Amino acid sequence: MNTFGRIFRLTTFGESHGPAIGGIIDGVPPGMPLDISLIQQELDKRRPGANPMTSARREADRVQILSGVMDGVTLGTPIGFVIPNTDARSAAYSEMRSKFRPNHADFTYEAKYGVRDYRGGSRASARETACRVVGGAVALQCLASQGIEVSAFVSGIGERSRCSEHDDFAPLLEEVERAHREGDSVGGVVTCIVNGVAAGIGAPLFAKLHAGLGAAMLSIPGVKGFEYGDGFAASASRGTEQLDIFSTDPSGRVITTTNHSGGIQGGIANGMPITMRIAFKPTPTLLRDLATIDTQGNATTLRARGRHDPCIALRGAAVVKAMAAMTLLDHLLLSQSTRL
Amino acid sequence: MNTFGRIFRLTTFGESHGPAIGGIIDGVPPGMPLDISLIQQELDKRRPGANPMTSARREADRVQILSGVMDGVTLGTPIGFVIPNTDARSAAYSEMRSKFRPNHADFTYEAKYGVRDYRGGSRASARETACRVVGGAVALQCLASQGIEVSAFVSGIGERSRCSEHDDFAPLLEEVERAHREGDSVGGVVTCIVNGVAAGIGAPLFAKLHAGLGAAMLSIPGVKGFEYGDGFAASASRGTEQLDIFSTDPSGRVITTTNHSGGIQGGIANGMPITMRIAFKPTPTLLRDLATIDTQGNATTLRARGRHDPCIALRGAAVVKAMAAMTLLDHLLLSQSTRL
Amino acid sequence: MNTFGRIFRLTTFGESHGPAIGGIIDGVPPGMPLDISLIQQELDKRRPGANPMTSARREADRVQILSGVMDGVTLGTPIGFVIPNTDARSAAYSEMRSKFRPNHADFTYEAKYGVRDYRGGSRASARETACRVVGGAVALQCLASQGIEVSAFVSGIGERSRCSEHDDFAPLLEEVERAHREGDSVGGVVTCIVNGVAAGIGAPLFAKLHAGLGAAMLSIPGVKGFEYGDGFAASASRGTEQLDIFSTDPSGRVITTTNHSGGIQGGIANGMPITMRIAFKPTPTLLRDLATIDTQGNATTLRARGRHDPCIALRGAAVVKAMAAMTLLDHLLLSQSTRL
Amino acid sequence: MNTFGRIFRLTTFGESHGPAIGGIIDGVPPGMPLDISLIQQELDKRRPGANPMTSARREADRVQILSGVMDGVTLGTPIGFVIPNTDARSAAYSEMRSKFRPNHADFTYEAKYGVRDYRGGSRASARETACRVVGGAVALQCLASQGIEVSAFVSGIGERSRCSEHDDFAPLLEEVERAHREGDSVGGVVTCIVNGVAAGIGAPLFAKLHAGLGAAMLSIPGVKGFEYGDGFAASASRGTEQLDIFSTDPSGRVITTTNHSGGIQGGIANGMPITMRIAFKPTPTLLRDLATIDTQGNATTLRARGRHDPCIALRGAAVVKAMAAMTLLDHLLLSQSTRL
Repeated sequence: MNTFGRIFRLTTFGESHGPAIGGIIDGVPPGMPLDISLIQQELDKRRPGANPMTSARREADRVQILSGVMDGVTLGTPIGFVIPNTDARSAAYSEMRSKFRPNHADFTYEAKYGVRDYRGGSRASARETACRVVGGAVALQCLASQGIEVSAFVSGIGERSRCSEHDDFAPLLEEVERAHREGDSVGGVVTCIVNGVAAGIGAPLFAKLHAGLGAAMLSIPGVKGFEYGDGFAASASRGTEQLDIFSTDPSGRVITTTNHSGGIQGGIANGMPITMRIAFKPTPTLLRDLATIDTQGNATTLRARGRHDPCIALRGAAVVKAMAAMTLLDHLLLSQSTRL
Repeated sequence: MNTFGRIFRLTTFGESHGPAIGGIIDGVPPGMPLDISLIQQELDKRRPGANPMTSARREADRVQILSGVMDGVTLGTPIGFVIPNTDARSAAYSEMRSKFRPNHADFTYEAKYGVRDYRGGSRASARETACRVVGGAVALQCLASQGIEVSAFVSGIGERSRCSEHDDFAPLLEEVERAHREGDSVGGVVTCIVNGVAAGIGAPLFAKLHAGLGAAMLSIPGVKGFEYGDGFAASASRGTEQLDIFSTDPSGRVITTTNHSGGIQGGIANGMPITMRIAFKPTPTLLRDLATIDTQGNATTLRARGRHDPCIALRGAAVVKAMAAMTLLDHLLLSQSTRL
Repeated sequence: MNTFGRIFRLTTFGESHGPAIGGIIDGVPPGMPLDISLIQQELDKRRPGANPMTSARREADRVQILSGVMDGVTLGTPIGFVIPNTDARSAAYSEMRSKFRPNHADFTYEAKYGVRDYRGGSRASARETACRVVGGAVALQCLASQGIEVSAFVSGIGERSRCSEHDDFAPLLEEVERAHREGDSVGGVVTCIVNGVAAGIGAPLFAKLHAGLGAAMLSIPGVKGFEYGDGFAASASRGTEQLDIFSTDPSGRVITTTNHSGGIQGGIANGMPITMRIAFKPTPTLLRDLATIDTQGNATTLRARGRHDPCIALRGAAVVKAMAAMTLLDHLLLSQSTRL
Repeated sequence: MNTFGRIFRLTTFGESHGPAIGGIIDGVPPGMPLDISLIQQELDKRRPGANPMTSARREADRVQILSGVMDGVTLGTPIGFVIPNTDARSAAYSEMRSKFRPNHADFTYEAKYGVRDYRGGSRASARETACRVVGGAVALQCLASQGIEVSAFVSGIGERSRCSEHDDFAPLLEEVERAHREGDSVGGVVTCIVNGVAAGIGAPLFAKLHAGLGAAMLSIPGVKGFEYGDGFAASASRGTEQLDIFSTDPSGRVITTTNHSGGIQGGIANGMPITMRIAFKPTPTLLRDLATIDTQGNATTLRARGRHDPCIALRGAAVVKAMAAMTLLDHLLLSQSTRL
């Protein structure tokens, strides 16, 4: 349940208000130079303060690597890591011991486990995504050595959108600020693009590459939807509008002249850029009185405290990038076992 | 790769133009009455002729159950089944031996395996979904015994849509017919609703219930996107518009007064109906001359023959229902191993 | 449960007295010539009549390949196969409906499932091993293409033993005949040797190569023990007696001058022959009156009918060979995903 | 590779001479009181000094629990733990950088990964078994709550043996001391017994309970063989000597009057004690000059330094107990998903 992947595997642990979170990265190819500072750098992108609108929790999020690397080179053995929780203000959450926050996992955790750590989302907190970013940062370095690049950017906030990472972000950020001023939160969309994946990587049937990417993205807290290529727009279009005609580039490599397919056909990469869009819901925590019930089922009200981003999609981009990287590396390694 | 699920597992085999397709259903609870005619009935819904616009291939699709059932009751042992391919006109596909059909998996299979059965999509053909429907039909009967019901219907074709299974389908079907008349194909959306899942079913982190549902749906041929609850619309909305306030029904059961969450919070069912939308692309096969390349990379043209639906979403509903049923039953069984 | 392997995977179905048994072989490397007659040949070795002392059930055991192969070459897609049950005399087993045979799985199946097919062992019958032999025969051909050879022979019956396949088998067979004459059965040991596995194949920790081989062998009906290299004898010896000193052969390849380790160190092949011994219990079915209980717990007697080998180890060699082949091929493919 | 189990899962990391070893225990049932001091206690049993003949490495082996427990009760979330390496004298191992120790995994790790941490066995060191003991200690507490008890004891050293934990251990220990005095090491056998497993726990075919136990035991460093029930002795016996006749005890529970089967029939527990024997080879490290080769393949000699037990079976009992506990709990939880 707490493990992601088949060959390249991330297993994580940790409650948001316990002593630490952390994980184990298994299946890392041996003999690869690993730059720990680049891991920390990816982690910093997801950190409060990296963006003016992300939550004010001031954890340094310093990752400690405990195994799997010697003299800056991977050993092929699992990489264990820990990120201490240094700024866990549990007191802010005491009210949640007996009340369920709307649109959070408090009630469902109680239903599943019969017991829960009520402090700040605990295991269901977005804090666990820091471990994903560590795993993703290791995967990114492996992929880079194979000429594969992963990028992710916020392409929509509320009803504002942009097409490319290079388009102006200010109007989108203004949407976040406006929601924040109004004591509200707002949803967003992250676009992810993977370049350099060779044709033939992926799998058919139940292990389709985009099914794996979809599951990866939908496992991120707050994600409500996933599409690749033309996605939902394809369902509103004609076949003649979706045609990706094959051709060859000057080097003789097979390409398609358009990329409605989003780089994947039949679950297997066709060598074109892999394109995806991931929908994040608005932050469920609202800094206002909300009607809810207590653990006895009685009506009550709850006023969220703690520190919260008004738009989880802002931090989401770093997590999307990490999940894409791990999924791609896993498929890349797995594909090596297809042929003798 | 060809196995779906963890406890309730479907493994399938079969090329569209080989002697048979089939599969093995493992993890079926023992002692359950199994009505084979209901399995055949689900299979018939997906059959050509079930819908005026589905393809004309006239296979009876008769499923033969080879094990796992005695005197109409499941044994808990795997159910092996075979569906003979009785109407496989391979001759129609000889041209595809040396040419790649656009928007199909011909090129990517060749890239992955270095060899392929060029006849009619082979393993990448939608024909393999018949096996999913058999697995789903077994799961549906198990779920029904637990009060869980799964429904799926075509809610959009091209730019036409409807909200409920009971709304008029004629305008949508007219879209299909129009595309067909114009030698084109058209995309569609299937909506799936699951009622009766108890709060607490599902899992956190990487095994979230909606991540499993998403992967299941994205593994269906032709699916380009998945969303649950308010999905992509949530990403364009404010937090105050997404609030699902907790309450209790007259029996004291916890409910939410709205269902933007789509029945799942933190990856775990909250007891409300689970709602999903699945985007299908237009049928990639178009009965007209198309530019493409041959296996040597030379430009050529290809004219599809064979029998093809102008809208794969029409048959897709039966497959969506099957995949939802298998995913839910798998999670239901898995959830039983959470507590001692 | 009914699936073996991680990359090269066999999933099986079938009761001994249902219409058929069969399976799906997934992860078969594509583009490999596959000789179906060699599969049938391995199956024949396990057949009644192949050995004068094996049971008299006269099934032809004809395997039908339904997918995954075209023009004699593997496609990389799953190979589905069926072996019809043509000689299932269920009547001989009617008494077992209400009585538990000693040393069989009748009671434990009833305890686990609450329902069982009482006819001839059903799913717990040795008949299911025919499917393993089919899977193994495919694996053997893949391994042969890589210069890997697997052999298995009966090295002990009762208290008689032999060291090599080339030693006289007559004294061992005499043990079987003697047991048979006396209305008894007898146990045996199968020795398995794998040559040609390159150093580096295998895995550490929980996926050690010999742990996988051990699990494979212990999953065969009637197996009570597994050892590799010097096995239990090593536990009675000194460290100085177990030393495998490294050296190089004329070609410069690393070898050990002895092979107490059985070709595996730390779970990973060292390039020397892999050697194992597998202990089979005597056939539990005895053609005499036996005290037992009925399904109500009342004391009763039972006299086995049906057809039974007096020594299951005789047929066991073909199954051991198959399981070794599948385990090795799985590890070989998996090992390809270790390095980028 | 570094994960054990399906529902109750242990994933571990750590080299013997890195900063720490540790792991993640997933699938722990929620709401269970967990006594951390009992975990430390199991860990201490495996520690140097617990036995006069175990190696002199003086690590406190203090386990730090980082998650999954609140107020002494399990949350159902993963338990992350770390055991710092406090006494890692790497200098003693510098010679091994360029030489392969006989009967160790140095050469095979190099062959598999192309790179290795040469210090003290690293990942292949018996030190990793401390993590197994932690996982086992958690499992033992879960099992105890269900009335299941696991015991393991050294039943053989060299050619000396004993039948029960209560028999005199002095003659066996004398064997160890004698080997030690002679600059040698010696092998041993551990016997493991599990009481209280209900009939019906386990699985058929490839997931047989004893196949899982065998794989678990064979994954322990130094184990060369596994048998259950009468094991290899059964292969030398007659069917009439192996009969376990069914009966009922005064409470009406089904029992067998003997237990040659070792508590398992057809892979499923029959309610009788589960009995196993595990063969450990002699410690491969000998404190004398040994012929070997260097990483270039040249002949050389190597004299082991560092601290080493003359008999790994002594510490092995604690690890056997841990692996048995985890395997049983995993099967117990998994069995709950058999029936709806």
